[in-house]
Amino acid sequence: MEIQKLLEEVKVGAISIEEAKKELVKLPYEDIGCAKIDHHRSLRSGFGEVIYCAGKSVSQLKDIYGLFQSRKENLMGTRASREQYEALKAQIPDLIYDEDARILRLEYKKPSKSGCVAVLTGGTSDLHVAEEAAVTAEYFGCSVTRIYDVGVAGIHRLLSRIEDIRKANCVIAAAGMEGALPGVVAGLVERPVIAVPTSIGYGASFGGVAPLLTMLNSCAEGVAVVNIDNGFGAGYLAAQMNRMAQPESRG
Amino acid sequence: MEIQKLLEEVKVGAISIEEAKKELVKLPYEDIGCAKIDHHRSLRSGFGEVIYCAGKSVSQLKDIYGLFQSRKENLMGTRASREQYEALKAQIPDLIYDEDARILRLEYKKPSKSGCVAVLTGGTSDLHVAEEAAVTAEYFGCSVTRIYDVGVAGIHRLLSRIEDIRKANCVIAAAGMEGALPGVVAGLVERPVIAVPTSIGYGASFGGVAPLLTMLNSCAEGVAVVNIDNGFGAGYLAAQMNRMAQPESRG
Amino acid sequence: MEIQKLLEEVKVGAISIEEAKKELVKLPYEDIGCAKIDHHRSLRSGFGEVIYCAGKSVSQLKDIYGLFQSRKENLMGTRASREQYEALKAQIPDLIYDEDARILRLEYKKPSKSGCVAVLTGGTSDLHVAEEAAVTAEYFGCSVTRIYDVGVAGIHRLLSRIEDIRKANCVIAAAGMEGALPGVVAGLVERPVIAVPTSIGYGASFGGVAPLLTMLNSCAEGVAVVNIDNGFGAGYLAAQMNRMAQPESRG
Amino acid sequence: MEIQKLLEEVKVGAISIEEAKKELVKLPYEDIGCAKIDHHRSLRSGFGEVIYCAGKSVSQLKDIYGLFQSRKENLMGTRASREQYEALKAQIPDLIYDEDARILRLEYKKPSKSGCVAVLTGGTSDLHVAEEAAVTAEYFGCSVTRIYDVGVAGIHRLLSRIEDIRKANCVIAAAGMEGALPGVVAGLVERPVIAVPTSIGYGASFGGVAPLLTMLNSCAEGVAVVNIDNGFGAGYLAAQMNRMAQPESRG
Amino acid sequence: MEIQKLLEEVKVGAISIEEAKKELVKLPYEDIGCAKIDHHRSLRSGFGEVIYCAGKSVSQLKDIYGLFQSRKENLMGTRASREQYEALKAQIPDLIYDEDARILRLEYKKPSKSGCVAVLTGGTSDLHVAEEAAVTAEYFGCSVTRIYDVGVAGIHRLLSRIEDIRKANCVIAAAGMEGALPGVVAGLVERPVIAVPTSIGYGASFGGVAPLLTMLNSCAEGVAVVNIDNGFGAGYLAAQMNRMAQPESRG
Amino acid sequence: MEIQKLLEEVKVGAISIEEAKKELVKLPYEDIGCAKIDHHRSLRSGFGEVIYCAGKSVSQLKDIYGLFQSRKENLMGTRASREQYEALKAQIPDLIYDEDARILRLEYKKPSKSGCVAVLTGGTSDLHVAEEAAVTAEYFGCSVTRIYDVGVAGIHRLLSRIEDIRKANCVIAAAGMEGALPGVVAGLVERPVIAVPTSIGYGASFGGVAPLLTMLNSCAEGVAVVNIDNGFGAGYLAAQMNRMAQPESRG
Amino acid sequence: MEIQKLLEEVKVGAISIEEAKKELVKLPYEDIGCAKIDHHRSLRSGFGEVIYCAGKSVSQLKDIYGLFQSRKENLMGTRASREQYEALKAQIPDLIYDEDARILRLEYKKPSKSGCVAVLTGGTSDLHVAEEAAVTAEYFGCSVTRIYDVGVAGIHRLLSRIEDIRKANCVIAAAGMEGALPGVVAGLVERPVIAVPTSIGYGASFGGVAPLLTMLNSCAEGVAVVNIDNGFGAGYLAAQMNRMAQPESRG
Amino acid sequence: MEIQKLLEEVKVGAISIEEAKKELVKLPYEDIGCAKIDHHRSLRSGFGEVIYCAGKSVSQLKDIYGLFQSRKENLMGTRASREQYEALKAQIPDLIYDEDARILRLEYKKPSKSGCVAVLTGGTSDLHVAEEAAVTAEYFGCSVTRIYDVGVAGIHRLLSRIEDIRKANCVIAAAGMEGALPGVVAGLVERPVIAVPTSIGYGASFGGVAPLLTMLNSCAEGVAVVNIDNGFGAGYLAAQMNRMAQPESRG
Repeated sequence: MEIQKLLEEVKVGAISIEEAKKELVKLPYEDIGCAKIDHHRSLRSGFGEVIYCAGKSVSQLKDIYGLFQSRKENLMGTRASREQYEALKAQIPDLIYDEDARILRLEYKKPSKSGCVAVLTGGTSDLHVAEEAAVTAEYFGCSVTRIYDVGVAGIHRLLSRIEDIRKANCVIAAAGMEGALPGVVAGLVERPVIAVPTSIGYGASFGGVAPLLTMLNSCAEGVAVVNIDNGFGAGYLAAQMNRMAQPESRG
Repeated sequence: MEIQKLLEEVKVGAISIEEAKKELVKLPYEDIGCAKIDHHRSLRSGFGEVIYCAGKSVSQLKDIYGLFQSRKENLMGTRASREQYEALKAQIPDLIYDEDARILRLEYKKPSKSGCVAVLTGGTSDLHVAEEAAVTAEYFGCSVTRIYDVGVAGIHRLLSRIEDIRKANCVIAAAGMEGALPGVVAGLVERPVIAVPTSIGYGASFGGVAPLLTMLNSCAEGVAVVNIDNGFGAGYLAAQMNRMAQPESRG
Repeated sequence: MEIQKLLEEVKVGAISIEEAKKELVKLPYEDIGCAKIDHHRSLRSGFGEVIYCAGKSVSQLKDIYGLFQSRKENLMGTRASREQYEALKAQIPDLIYDEDARILRLEYKKPSKSGCVAVLTGGTSDLHVAEEAAVTAEYFGCSVTRIYDVGVAGIHRLLSRIEDIRKANCVIAAAGMEGALPGVVAGLVERPVIAVPTSIGYGASFGGVAPLLTMLNSCAEGVAVVNIDNGFGAGYLAAQMNRMAQPESRG
Repeated sequence: MEIQKLLEEVKVGAISIEEAKKELVKLPYEDIGCAKIDHHRSLRSGFGEVIYCAGKSVSQLKDIYGLFQSRKENLMGTRASREQYEALKAQIPDLIYDEDARILRLEYKKPSKSGCVAVLTGGTSDLHVAEEAAVTAEYFGCSVTRIYDVGVAGIHRLLSRIEDIRKANCVIAAAGMEGALPGVVAGLVERPVIAVPTSIGYGASFGGVAPLLTMLNSCAEGVAVVNIDNGFGAGYLAAQMNRMAQPESRG
Repeated sequence: MEIQKLLEEVKVGAISIEEAKKELVKLPYEDIGCAKIDHHRSLRSGFGEVIYCAGKSVSQLKDIYGLFQSRKENLMGTRASREQYEALKAQIPDLIYDEDARILRLEYKKPSKSGCVAVLTGGTSDLHVAEEAAVTAEYFGCSVTRIYDVGVAGIHRLLSRIEDIRKANCVIAAAGMEGALPGVVAGLVERPVIAVPTSIGYGASFGGVAPLLTMLNSCAEGVAVVNIDNGFGAGYLAAQMNRMAQPESRG
Repeated sequence: MEIQKLLEEVKVGAISIEEAKKELVKLPYEDIGCAKIDHHRSLRSGFGEVIYCAGKSVSQLKDIYGLFQSRKENLMGTRASREQYEALKAQIPDLIYDEDARILRLEYKKPSKSGCVAVLTGGTSDLHVAEEAAVTAEYFGCSVTRIYDVGVAGIHRLLSRIEDIRKANCVIAAAGMEGALPGVVAGLVERPVIAVPTSIGYGASFGGVAPLLTMLNSCAEGVAVVNIDNGFGAGYLAAQMNRMAQPESRG
Repeated sequence: MEIQKLLEEVKVGAISIEEAKKELVKLPYEDIGCAKIDHHRSLRSGFGEVIYCAGKSVSQLKDIYGLFQSRKENLMGTRASREQYEALKAQIPDLIYDEDARILRLEYKKPSKSGCVAVLTGGTSDLHVAEEAAVTAEYFGCSVTRIYDVGVAGIHRLLSRIEDIRKANCVIAAAGMEGALPGVVAGLVERPVIAVPTSIGYGASFGGVAPLLTMLNSCAEGVAVVNIDNGFGAGYLAAQMNRMAQPESRG
Repeated sequence: MEIQKLLEEVKVGAISIEEAKKELVKLPYEDIGCAKIDHHRSLRSGFGEVIYCAGKSVSQLKDIYGLFQSRKENLMGTRASREQYEALKAQIPDLIYDEDARILRLEYKKPSKSGCVAVLTGGTSDLHVAEEAAVTAEYFGCSVTRIYDVGVAGIHRLLSRIEDIRKANCVIAAAGMEGALPGVVAGLVERPVIAVPTSIGYGASFGGVAPLLTMLNSCAEGVAVVNIDNGFGAGYLAAQMNRMAQPESRG
């Protein structure tokens, strides 16, 4: 827009080259015309806006969700509490709340699902983190296979599902305490395994430090680690990888 | 093989069902016929054998490399010292040693390179880790673009190369000290960024802990972290992702 | 079962060897006929099911305990709160709640007690952890001698009970703060000492890290360490050891 | 005062030299006549009194603020809660409360503002820390430019504001999680950057340890780090620097 | 001895009761006649003397080993270097040195071996620690089955040996880096698993801290942890347990 | 008692020497006649009983305090809350509660105070810890000089009081955050300085770890460190030292 | 240059506006005409190039220093060893080596010194870090007053020099172990104090962690912390501040 | 001296009161006449000069020891290597070197020894630290009883020596690994116990962190902790306490 106008003015001599140069420097970076830089990454990537709800006031959330509702645009919010949802739902009736995943979203345009991401957990208490990952991956267009409670303390539970896991383009494995699941899975599949340490546990798990270290030290190749409890980050990475495996993802 | 023979014997009554059951349990898991489990992952995945040379004696290395030389099979060894190479090269003349990457390999079959992986470093001293990643990715069939010394303390160096980085299927970013490079890059590209903290530095970098934490806490989506100095792991992950982006990688 | 049927079908030619091989791979691991792998460890070991109650909803607990009550089967739950017990007891009248141990159980079949396990604590505030260990060991068939508040700051309290301690097949010693009890005991007895660091304390005890390190660094031989506050794990280990000392435990 | 009198008495022989020496030793250090030592630094520096409100009782605060109100003197209190303000405002009507900055102040003499300090944040949740820094700097006589939510995950947001930032005598950059903002900014400006790690975040940010380490390890020159969440300290340092850049600050 | 004499003197009135009481208090504790306390534990337990060689001078070692050689008594020394052995062997010709285990011993009386202990490692580089454990267990009378390089990154290697492992009275599992082996094994066997974290590795394994935490956090029951690299401690614990499983171990 | 009787029986031949030896071993250690071991240290030392109230139930406290009230004996309890005091005072009317020190005591016999202990704090928020130390020292017979809020950030405050500090037999210095007070004081006095790190503070004080490290690393000689917030321990140590300086403390 | 040419081509219609927009995006950022971004910061800031010598090969250093020697331009290298200097001096005869500061420089243009920076150390062993800071500040145009060995364990040493310290525009205080010097100094002066923790020491100083925490937790206002042993960073910050205090530094 | 002269000049009118005030402020603090402040603490305390030899060059040591030799004054140096001693002894023939204690001293005036300090170690490898403590205490006038290798893993060794330990005015207990010795001793004696953690050990002893934490968390009263390996500090503290127990130490 502005860059277009500026260049036109240069062309017709409405402004001097010197003045044009000064303007170019002052313009917000996004006005230079470089779509890849000046648009928010979330828009550019086709993955839509995502906000972090924890710590935001109801009034702030009303403003943000209200804007997207008025535009009928998708918006995904992570770490949203039921209280936040309850306070918003009257005014933002299109809101969808997924309590397990703690995700609050407006989803006017649903992506067609393709490819497959497997989401595994070591135990039942890793559910919230796993669901955050799974719902995120679905929101960004992945089919998701949930395979929960397959921790390595009972290895046969995992082995009996290994064929399903191998069908996925990539695997998300969330685990707390010893956190050995991603490493064992990576030894059994050919695709990347995204490891999510969870803060579930007590004692020397130190709020997720123990499984984090386990995952970073995995002896199997193909383990990519994200932050403790970062289900969203895992789901996003999985969606990026899954998209790479789609025919339309190549130029 | 064995499973085939066993079932044939059951069929013809050569052994009883009871005996067959006992045999099935005793057989090494790989003999049940489940090709995906009983073959070594490295073979199954098509990525070939990889060994870790650090701490292995020259005599152990001679045995291993000698075996693969005699079979004319590929073998890649990581963390190999020049001393190890010097001690082996007379007897294993086919050895190729890459000193920067500390990789010692037999490479009878070269993969055709396809796709592209960008390997970035924050500083010049991250070279060894970056080269380990780059040579690994090349060994596993990726074209690699090396873009070194583009740390965020001089952000324009990075920005001036951003278009080259965006062409890659995925990005490896190695950095020590503050370790902010992967997060900044992930904010500028659409593909996954594999973050490798390096132990380069002094003081409060604590042997790579500081950049490791930075990378795990990245605010940009799409950052996958591997262990400190784990160039090999990053290269392997990149090769997995790059392969996903190839047409022939889908069924 | 399934493996039996499959092999019979192979024998009679109802399915081909190729088909049988495919089926074998797909079957859950537990169906191969390998009793030791495909049954849940808890059942196989004869120690019964154990669940972790903390974080489970009342409704989840009702389902689980209800199922076992209906089958008149034993079930032990750890880290159960009085609130959980109160909410369940009307519907699950057979429930037994041990508040000190925070253990909630159905115990239709009581094991005959044999052997002896001594459970020691350094102070009175290690009670919950010690009781979790003691009740667990009893539930799994051990006679338990409780010797509490014998911390090393008043060594004569411990010395005056040493003969009782020496009668046990193994010793559980729970201690917080300095955590020196297990090491001192191990120097005085011939049997293994299971050391349980507790999170009791303040300041530089760092939630149990200080006693954990003390126990790992014990100069006396024969100290086996479990996680901070892991009374259940200690009781389980003790029961395994105690069983080894029983005549019927050998083949 | 006392020193003057003492020396006069020595001169006129009212006390002996021996006695004078004894007196000199006993006098509070501030009575020796050394104005720079014996006055409270806060007074000497011209920056006025500052108190830390967290943990102080309402009654203690009433005494302190009441005293300064009665003298019509400035007093700034940090980490003050709305509850504290509500409890005080009836009796201390001159109180001004800034909720975002959590600063409670009496400000009878407003400094003339001069120079410029830029206050940046990586995200919106660093607001409290940034406002504490900004209000402190203003209270001590700086003009402040607030530039919030310019984290490095979207580097163009920062780049588009870089000219405004360069106008400042010094920059305060508050960031949590990866904490890379100060290092990137220091690479783009010529003035000192005061880095404030914030405890905002989750997982491996460890309450601000991750951004603290990032900032200490910054590869760009000119980064000065303060304690986690120490907005006040950053504002104070900025005011010291800003004052150095004023003509009247030189002798 | 002394106690015997003292009581005899009391009996014959050679000393008064008062004097006898004073003597009793002064006597070294071992002289009271309490065999269990006053004899060194190593003697009492029947496991013989063990010394720690690292840091001891050749001259100190000569004295100690020389004494035991002259008595034809067993003596085991841990963490002994080849240099120490070379310096001693001329003068102490009965010395046996096991380089992998770093154990230097006099073994005049060989125990009859009974029971079985399985010693597992995750990788080949855990050899030294595993051998220290294995040789210790053998020295104390256990039959040992060595099953090395069965890390969880290639789970089938472990599964194919599981029946051998199940035959043992207890299992020692040594692993570095992720350290997941003991937890997986404990899920597959009924006997206690002694977990030994090793300091092998790099990066975020932090000299054995990562596998230590993994092992402490194991979700499988029956895992007993010892200090990093403490192969001797593991072997000793295993021998204690193995002895419990022998018929002659009960009174 | 028992030992007396036993020896008498030996003398008169009522039991054999062999039997006497067996009895001696079985007797509780305290019955051997060794007064120093078999009496509780608290009694032996003349410092009276001390209990830790935090975590004890009102009913437990009632039992303990009730017993000592009935005997008219002194009892000191640390970390007692006002709630505990309120719940007890009707039934235990002799209770004295010191809210700042959180000490709840029965004090029928007051020690005559002698010697002097100086108790210093860096800031006003170290009050609770300092008062716990001061009241403990007073309870155990010390005169206490309180000199609070003399932190090193305003060194003249400390210097002006140095003569008072030098009069003490020993100094207790409690400080949080930077924790530099004890080291500076130790450089100015000739007597031992007991350093108490406090958990007061925020950010990188890490709950008292920062001042703890500062105190352990003090460059001045004569600094003795106790646990974080351990005012009681400091007061106890001070009383031990103060007693050493009294004429009657030598034999 | 390029931007100039491009705009001229637009003006004369040599390229279309669309093409110009495409070119603008592709140009390296520094070519857009934004002088402040596209020049290396070190040049822009007038502080000249600085390199980190540790880890660089002699051949790399020869290339770099040779280039600057040929241009007669200043170049400063930090962490340079005497070995590096010896290897270079024949070929680069203009090199100046400061062994205490470990700084190797070409200094064709000497800055006129102005303003004053005081550099303090707690002990004599902080010399290297302090000299790195002092020589850096001098190289960048500051007069430097060195006041070494004035640690707080002997506070009078510091107090006797306080007037000299107050004359400085800013103070650098380097200290290891307890690290209390900067906080005490900041309480005595009105200018910013740059705190440099040093790794000198043993035990619980943990390679500089203890003084780092002390400095971050300083209760005095006006303390700016840099990385452990980062003398260069401190000198650079001091030079930035000192320049702010010069008349010519204002626009 | 100077203060005397100054006051005399005031008296006789040689200088004005104004001038005298200016001089008083400028004079080094030690010249005000305050003997306690302006003399080095080491002199004032009567304990003589102590230097830290590690890291000092031979030439520096020659200067320092040479000066004291020429004055025939005592000087004690800690952490001195045999190499340093060998290099100095020709020129400083009066030097006495204690290799176990690593103490290098000139001792022209020997203190008369009085009182008693007991020095204990847990193991033989704590010798260096214990000897540093013992020799320091002797140098400062204490009689020292050495009781080594009485670690708590063989508690009877300690108990058999308890009467000797109780005779001391205070106890120094050095221990590595689990570090439980000081706490057990403190429970058995009435005098202060100075706890010295040693860095001896491996694995989770973390260079002395484990015993440091154990000692800080001791449940027995009367434990004073010093830095890891700080034998000198312990000896100094012991000498301070021992002196308090001497009749001549009171005014």
